[in-house]
Amino acid sequence: MACSIALIQGASRGLGLEFCRYILKNKSPAAVIATCRNPDGAVDLRALAEQHPNRMTVLKLDVDREEDIGGAADRVRESFGRLDLIVNSSAMLHPSGKGETSLRDVSAKGLVSTLTTNTVGPLIMAKYFAPLLQKGGGGFGQQPAEKAKQHSGIIVNITAKVGSIGDNGLGGWYSYRMSKAALNMATRNLSIELARSRPKVVCVSLHPGTVNTDLSRPYHRNVPKVKLFDTERSVNYLMSIVDTLSIEKTGKAYNWDGTELPW
Amino acid sequence: MACSIALIQGASRGLGLEFCRYILKNKSPAAVIATCRNPDGAVDLRALAEQHPNRMTVLKLDVDREEDIGGAADRVRESFGRLDLIVNSSAMLHPSGKGETSLRDVSAKGLVSTLTTNTVGPLIMAKYFAPLLQKGGGGFGQQPAEKAKQHSGIIVNITAKVGSIGDNGLGGWYSYRMSKAALNMATRNLSIELARSRPKVVCVSLHPGTVNTDLSRPYHRNVPKVKLFDTERSVNYLMSIVDTLSIEKTGKAYNWDGTELPW
Repeated sequence: MACSIALIQGASRGLGLEFCRYILKNKSPAAVIATCRNPDGAVDLRALAEQHPNRMTVLKLDVDREEDIGGAADRVRESFGRLDLIVNSSAMLHPSGKGETSLRDVSAKGLVSTLTTNTVGPLIMAKYFAPLLQKGGGGFGQQPAEKAKQHSGIIVNITAKVGSIGDNGLGGWYSYRMSKAALNMATRNLSIELARSRPKVVCVSLHPGTVNTDLSRPYHRNVPKVKLFDTERSVNYLMSIVDTLSIEKTGKAYNWDGTELPW
Repeated sequence: MACSIALIQGASRGLGLEFCRYILKNKSPAAVIATCRNPDGAVDLRALAEQHPNRMTVLKLDVDREEDIGGAADRVRESFGRLDLIVNSSAMLHPSGKGETSLRDVSAKGLVSTLTTNTVGPLIMAKYFAPLLQKGGGGFGQQPAEKAKQHSGIIVNITAKVGSIGDNGLGGWYSYRMSKAALNMATRNLSIELARSRPKVVCVSLHPGTVNTDLSRPYHRNVPKVKLFDTERSVNYLMSIVDTLSIEKTGKAYNWDGTELPW
């Protein structure tokens, strides 16, 4: 069987970059397609690609632009013809870099920007790449013995615990919370549509914990050190979950420790 | 005590128009401020306003435009100084008039339009009108004896059962479902922020049932007649819920029959 192919969207830094590193290190000989808005500026990602010239491809893709996504999917189709895993990793807290602490900070423009990147982007990714996942070899996750229940590919949408409506006891961060709640609905809808197809594609939302990235950095003072993960630790947890995924587990949101998150 | 004031957003037709009729008929002498995108074209709404010249005001407000919302709030502040109830009623299924049946029908443009009207609009309404609700007289809902638990105003966001992630077993209607899931998160966040304020403002999401309106009309063939409400019946149900609201019930999504909807 041919080797597996993973596409990591939002791979220039943070969790996305770490997913690339993890797969190159732990899932040999799987290939990695890394996408980001500005490959020229993605120094760490390019260095990683230079270390793995035969296993890694970097593509320019701005998740805010449907035509970019469609164009990248065309290139992946031509060069690879299929995919086994997509991780939708890019996200913003708010265009200002700070989550809204109260209604006064909320603006239509900030909401629309955040929803476009965090919610619309991942779903448009699924629109163009699902056909390639349906041609995948099911190289990630667990395959049950029964053929009708096997999957050809997996979509991972990186969500956040603060995107759980039921778990929301503190409020604030309007744009980010709303974008992740809507993303969870997208996950649920995708899981339903893509479980009907043959072969099946699994889709889940995963919460990475509070991770030491640019997104969360302004808020680290309030996080106990033991609960602040570096990207390596977080991606280790998340890929352990990916390793257990099957069509039985599709359509849910999971915490970094594998427990189910409430909607 | 001065008479109550309700603002109905999206009042040109459907549920919004019916909320105006209901309050004029059943909540005398409450005043109604009705907003819509195009008052000149809102024949039924203008006819209603002409029948109730002393109780009803029509304001132009496009929920997609933050400056419109801010301007309308200025006018309400100058003319009324306070509010007791806001109903965010306007919504679209999708700019095409049809919900997406599969991923193929999804577009970034359609998603952003739907999220802007159904999700961003109601939250920006809350941003500009919450200060007026904090000056309200608490004329709607139930007031507990304990003064610290009383509310001055209520925000009703019209949601939909298909916006419940946990209840989603069928998929499809990506834009609409995602917009309502994100709106439910907005309701939850608003309920937390506005319960901290003094006086308190209640915020809930209400599901009107499947109602005979322009939004749902293309889908009526699949709805058993007994489950297809006319707007009058639906608004009767919803206002019965509003009559029971207090700060204890804030931050939740309720079905037309008063049962709680899962997130």
